Amino acid sequence: MPVRSDDLVARALDHDRRAVAKLISMVERGGDDAHEVVARLYRRTGGAYTVGITGAPGAGKSTLTDKLVAGIRADGAEVGVLAVDPSSPFTGGAILGDRIRMQEHATDDGVFIRSMATRGHLGGLALATPQAVRILDAAGMPWVIVETVGVGQVEVEIAGAADTTVVVVTPGWGDAVQANKAGLLEIADVLVVNKADRDGADETARDLEVMLDLSDLGAGDWRPPVVRAVAATGEGVGDVWDAVLTHRAHLEDTGGLERRRTERTRAELRAIVAHRIQEQAAGACSGSAFDAAAAAVLAREIDPYEAADKLLEDVHGG
Amino acid sequence: MPVRSDDLVARALDHDRRAVAKLISMVERGGDDAHEVVARLYRRTGGAYTVGITGAPGAGKSTLTDKLVAGIRADGAEVGVLAVDPSSPFTGGAILGDRIRMQEHATDDGVFIRSMATRGHLGGLALATPQAVRILDAAGMPWVIVETVGVGQVEVEIAGAADTTVVVVTPGWGDAVQANKAGLLEIADVLVVNKADRDGADETARDLEVMLDLSDLGAGDWRPPVVRAVAATGEGVGDVWDAVLTHRAHLEDTGGLERRRTERTRAELRAIVAHRIQEQAAGACSGSAFDAAAAAVLAREIDPYEAADKLLEDVHGG
Repeated sequence: MPVRSDDLVARALDHDRRAVAKLISMVERGGDDAHEVVARLYRRTGGAYTVGITGAPGAGKSTLTDKLVAGIRADGAEVGVLAVDPSSPFTGGAILGDRIRMQEHATDDGVFIRSMATRGHLGGLALATPQAVRILDAAGMPWVIVETVGVGQVEVEIAGAADTTVVVVTPGWGDAVQANKAGLLEIADVLVVNKADRDGADETARDLEVMLDLSDLGAGDWRPPVVRAVAATGEGVGDVWDAVLTHRAHLEDTGGLERRRTERTRAELRAIVAHRIQEQAAGACSGSAFDAAAAAVLAREIDPYEAADKLLEDVHGG
Repeated sequence: MPVRSDDLVARALDHDRRAVAKLISMVERGGDDAHEVVARLYRRTGGAYTVGITGAPGAGKSTLTDKLVAGIRADGAEVGVLAVDPSSPFTGGAILGDRIRMQEHATDDGVFIRSMATRGHLGGLALATPQAVRILDAAGMPWVIVETVGVGQVEVEIAGAADTTVVVVTPGWGDAVQANKAGLLEIADVLVVNKADRDGADETARDLEVMLDLSDLGAGDWRPPVVRAVAATGEGVGDVWDAVLTHRAHLEDTGGLERRRTERTRAELRAIVAHRIQEQAAGACSGSAFDAAAAAVLAREIDPYEAADKLLEDVHGG
């Protein structure tokens, strides 16, 4: 495996799309291979700017992403797209919509689109996504879009872990995603009212502005612009991208980008430590050593705290 | 502290109520003192039979408990009561209702009543309660009643960690605690319809029987009896206690008591290991070592997985 991942990393750094796809599968699976991949290319990252796109199901996120990708390509830049769907059991391009999208850009080597779905638990996906972003980053993509359904805590977290986060809503969205509304608004750097040709678009845009008025933005704080678009026809998509570029310039001018990336790195480090420790806990609480410890506690040969300490010593010693 | 807890443990084993109260405060605070107390008296435990009493707020749990206590005392046995209220910020007899109850039994050395409430987080209380039970056990109480409001997951867990669990409902309870109904029924060994002189008692008892009919009890499995009572007048309280004794006999005859205590011990051991590991994670993710690790990751001197491993090595080495 070391030799193979060495070779794959070398090819990925050389923009080889198949090598990139294989490396993403490796980080998706997690474990030692994933760590090795990250170790091999981490020093080559830092060049990409990430854009998160999230919103309720049916808000038109994929359509908007596709139109943004077309715009980026028209400017001549390369772009990677990770479509993260924690609720889907499929991975690696197996999703129908994903295949259709792949086809659209099939002849364009400057676009890399990839679905990531749940292999095992959600926590795994939350950890795997930033690693997949790093692979695209190391492969020389100046833009990486992470698209995710803004339904649960994990999805919002994944989309929020971007340099600029775009939250897509539609007229009347409020009733549908009431529970998660606050979480979505909190991570938004750009708010898009998509399907703005439908009834209620004005009201939805006004509601969002009122909510922003009521939020406690300080002087100099970024106020998320509310942009109307009809992604299906391309109307307003240029305005969405302009808003992303304006937010990027704001972050770069104010030192916000560095602060944001610092906080993200710290959060990721915490998440990896927690994940490692959970693995250790699972190891300590299974197998014959655990059975023996529980039996000794039950027989009152040892008290439960002492037993727990011994189990943990065994894990750390081994 | 070692000398002091030594002395307190010796006095508690000698049925000294003030020493018992002080030891419970120590396990409530958690940390090394708690572990030391448990280590010192754990081998003297195993004689007590625990009864959990839970139900929605206002179901009459305290009144039922008091009447059961009076019955146990009439039989000449000693009894300890832990009233666990995770939602209350008060501890150690500071609760008004608790003081009133203490007064009632103030002249009776055979009863020990104590409130336990949240000091810090809920997980702490879930861990502290079994330790408090052990203190009463080691102090020679043959019966320990753990009373808790059956509102959240933790409360249900605490009440369910008894040899026999009594779930108290009232006519029309279903609407009030809909969300937690299934969880409460799942842990019930004895179901009490309290305030059975009120309208709807027949219907409530019938509903419970139907639910039990629909549950997948196997041949030889214990079917929780549905007992009607009016705790305030004492009506039916004898029947409740008979049901507890019948369940105890069933557990003892079928080996169920040993199985139940084995599973409880294993669950507690897992909880202590998880708690220890959380402490380690918190330690690894704070302080200057963490700041330095995050800065090194951000500077791309080291990758996040390597940084996490180094932080964990430091924790385990120290």
